Amino acid sequence: MSVTVVGSVAFDALETPFGKRDRILGGAATHFSLAASFFTQAHVVGIVGEDFGEDEFSVFSARGINTTDIKRVPGGSSFFWAGRYDEDMSVAQTLDTQLNVFADFDPELSTEARDCSILFLANIQPELQRRVRAQCPDARFVGLDSMNYWIKSARDSLVKAMRSVDAIIFNDVEVRMLTGEPNLSVAAHRIRELGPRVLFVKQGSYGACMYSEVGFFSIPAYPLETVVDPTGAGDSFAGGLCGYLDSLGGGRPTENQLRCAAVYGSVLASFTVEDFGTERLQRLTDQEIADRFQEFKQMTVFEAPQVLATLKR
Amino acid sequence: MSVTVVGSVAFDALETPFGKRDRILGGAATHFSLAASFFTQAHVVGIVGEDFGEDEFSVFSARGINTTDIKRVPGGSSFFWAGRYDEDMSVAQTLDTQLNVFADFDPELSTEARDCSILFLANIQPELQRRVRAQCPDARFVGLDSMNYWIKSARDSLVKAMRSVDAIIFNDVEVRMLTGEPNLSVAAHRIRELGPRVLFVKQGSYGACMYSEVGFFSIPAYPLETVVDPTGAGDSFAGGLCGYLDSLGGGRPTENQLRCAAVYGSVLASFTVEDFGTERLQRLTDQEIADRFQEFKQMTVFEAPQVLATLKR
Repeated sequence: MSVTVVGSVAFDALETPFGKRDRILGGAATHFSLAASFFTQAHVVGIVGEDFGEDEFSVFSARGINTTDIKRVPGGSSFFWAGRYDEDMSVAQTLDTQLNVFADFDPELSTEARDCSILFLANIQPELQRRVRAQCPDARFVGLDSMNYWIKSARDSLVKAMRSVDAIIFNDVEVRMLTGEPNLSVAAHRIRELGPRVLFVKQGSYGACMYSEVGFFSIPAYPLETVVDPTGAGDSFAGGLCGYLDSLGGGRPTENQLRCAAVYGSVLASFTVEDFGTERLQRLTDQEIADRFQEFKQMTVFEAPQVLATLKR
Repeated sequence: MSVTVVGSVAFDALETPFGKRDRILGGAATHFSLAASFFTQAHVVGIVGEDFGEDEFSVFSARGINTTDIKRVPGGSSFFWAGRYDEDMSVAQTLDTQLNVFADFDPELSTEARDCSILFLANIQPELQRRVRAQCPDARFVGLDSMNYWIKSARDSLVKAMRSVDAIIFNDVEVRMLTGEPNLSVAAHRIRELGPRVLFVKQGSYGACMYSEVGFFSIPAYPLETVVDPTGAGDSFAGGLCGYLDSLGGGRPTENQLRCAAVYGSVLASFTVEDFGTERLQRLTDQEIADRFQEFKQMTVFEAPQVLATLKR
């Protein structure tokens, strides 16, 4: 039982109204695997440069994450992203992107990485997502993320990749962009018609929702008074979600398991944004996760009145 | 036991991607009272012109709404608003506003209207809201709405009005504008510090949330595939909310009652936007309301796993 994630492992430079970091550990696969590691064995497939050293690898090993499929290129530099968030923390402004070794990423998964029960294809070139998908034919649940860049530049390839997975985990802008449909419910319907049985939609400070065979499920974001750095929230959401599903063992997830997975995803995302990069997840405890899950329950529960109010008239 | 609402009763001209209406019944107090009428006796305080006739009054009387406090000005014209919604149905573009008789609105409530158990001060000049509030000292629950115009032009008067009520029902833009605070949780805290024990925040297609002594509660919007006309959604939300609270009888509403009220508000709002103006609420049934309330329950429920997933490691 393990989750394999394929995606970026990187250095980030970040500026938010709450501070600044010049060069910290980042990348989709990093955030994903840290979040998943609270629930199951996580396995990262990625590529880094010689600048990626013991300090960085130790963040993974401290959480028992398998990094044998992180290829380290001698003389190379790791993927680097610099971004800034202004007062409206919902949109990042990209200041710099250096693909470096990531430009030549074309992973051949180890037997161990292929032997996962759950596979997550983080935001990378759709052609690569498809090649990785083909390497893991036995995964019982496969999730996929993407971004506006691929939706615009490689739509056909992305749609093919989407057809081969169980779950799409997009933000609402991506859902609308891919389908050209402003109404989220209609757009969700279109995406599920492509093949994936479930669509999770990340909605930033509004939370997340899920469209499945059963219908619609929604979970708010945790009402934080301070969001220090939103970077990695979406990948932590996916990591908590997939990690939790993996911890349940074999079989097709039930509707309630998918819903709880979305809640665990929201729990992990809510912690990630409390500090820069991976800093909060590095010091997160199982008990904090369990407590916040209960808080999510409290934030959404209501007991229907026994006598329906409308019978009154 | 009755709900009194003070606000606009008007004619609207509307254009949306789904059609057009040249002159239909509208106004905040109209939408509010129709929604509330499914739960309790509603009483409208407003002003109209001679152009407001039997056709319009019959919409209220068909739902048992008391209109004796709607003042009809001989020779005058009713408040008129023309608006358009483009593909993004979340924002209305105002094409025309004619205040007409509404410019001289300064209501003296009848004994019957004053004798309400719940009072709702819809979006009117804050000075008027305060005068009406003073006329209903015995109301056990008072709600208040406003708009960007008053927040900018009459902030001090509005804050005074807010201090005299139990509940604020704003949209998220208004909450941020009034407080100058981009973080909704911080902004909510500031608003509750002014006096109101509860803040309901309308978030359009994202739903609504509530901040109370107990904490945070969130309810999604009903996932409609077609929103025909969003006009009146916010006022129907407030009407369903206040109407339901009134139907519960005396006493201070409990946390669960406030939550169910927010859900009933969301139910009524979701029906309102299914057709133009008041058209959907005019043909709405008690059973449809009861069924959709249950659907909201289904859209938000999840059963926490018995063994916490995080205990696994």
